[in-house]
Amino acid sequence: MAPQKRVGVVLSGCGFLDGAEIQEAVCTLLSLDRRGAAVVAAAPDVEQLHVVDHVRGAPAEGERRRVLQESARIVRGKIVDLARVRATDLDAVVFPGGFGVAKNLCSFAVDGRNMKVVPEVERLVRELRAERKPMGFICIAPVIAARLLGDEGVKVTIGDDAETAAAITSWGARHVDRRVDEIVVDERLKVVSTPAYMLGPWIAPVATGIDKLIAALLELAS
Amino acid sequence: MAPQKRVGVVLSGCGFLDGAEIQEAVCTLLSLDRRGAAVVAAAPDVEQLHVVDHVRGAPAEGERRRVLQESARIVRGKIVDLARVRATDLDAVVFPGGFGVAKNLCSFAVDGRNMKVVPEVERLVRELRAERKPMGFICIAPVIAARLLGDEGVKVTIGDDAETAAAITSWGARHVDRRVDEIVVDERLKVVSTPAYMLGPWIAPVATGIDKLIAALLELAS
Repeated sequence: MAPQKRVGVVLSGCGFLDGAEIQEAVCTLLSLDRRGAAVVAAAPDVEQLHVVDHVRGAPAEGERRRVLQESARIVRGKIVDLARVRATDLDAVVFPGGFGVAKNLCSFAVDGRNMKVVPEVERLVRELRAERKPMGFICIAPVIAARLLGDEGVKVTIGDDAETAAAITSWGARHVDRRVDEIVVDERLKVVSTPAYMLGPWIAPVATGIDKLIAALLELAS
Repeated sequence: MAPQKRVGVVLSGCGFLDGAEIQEAVCTLLSLDRRGAAVVAAAPDVEQLHVVDHVRGAPAEGERRRVLQESARIVRGKIVDLARVRATDLDAVVFPGGFGVAKNLCSFAVDGRNMKVVPEVERLVRELRAERKPMGFICIAPVIAARLLGDEGVKVTIGDDAETAAAITSWGARHVDRRVDEIVVDERLKVVSTPAYMLGPWIAPVATGIDKLIAALLELAS
């Protein structure tokens, strides 16, 4: 029997408006478990950009939360500080989406095309690239791949949002339009992506796209 | 084509130590969507018993959160105050688990056998019972069914935890031991239950049990 694959799942909080998209994160965990992979959940130990009241859809003034603590809710406390995770510990990595990616893992929500990637996230992606290990990016997370691997012309999808696609191509990356339940595989750079809630509208097709992404990721890792 | 079933999903926060068990809640949403049912997510608009740091597994002193706002994170803001939900609006209802059930929907975590059920939760369960509509209870949530329908001898499972099973039988309900991926169906009272993370250990078997529960629930609703 092949040894169990160890797959990093990088979370950005807990809730689609200020953290990780919860349904995408859980569908990722479910697909990995059903396909026999072990999860190594991680998140940066930093403060969230802000806290959003998910009923009103507006910032909750005065509240402060930390990305690692909130992310821990999704994985029942089984999580480590991203700073402690090395590419040598993993066979692959996945980034679920949510605004938390664009607010806490990089600055896309604030800076658009001039965005920066959080140092620990950039380090891990560059380590995985150097070791030629596969990476999966869900929803808005492909902006991280595009920003860091744009100089190599990485191919990704975020669905069909023209503005985000334009930012992606501005960094030298290639964007391909896809439907919610489809994926894009860059075989050369071992990067897989799926639109998820960039398109929605609800969980079943999102789960289908994510399961295809995980299947492709594990295939690239073997 | 049969009309789409409307299924209430009652949430108790966001995170297994002080709210809804996130993975169970999302597996419930996924199963309902894949089986063609519409979700009516609801939560009581009350303050959480407390807030737990899910990295340390210990209460976060001084923090306060509300059950409705935190539950909204799981369903992307598509949620209503439980006080506004009537059994006549629904074909069935499901209660995912998590300590939030025992802390925010009833007082089992504090009062054990002397627990009380939050008034809006009790009202909805009694309305559904009166209309003979099916109800699903996941993980620790069967204590609510046992407390409210114990006088009718409702049959449920919470897995094999002897202490919780003893509380359940003390109210006149019947407890049946089950494995994580199994369910118990009380055909007479139209109550379905599954152990989920009362047993675990991880998401795939929990999802299997929940999917069986949803299938049985929709069958009872037809």
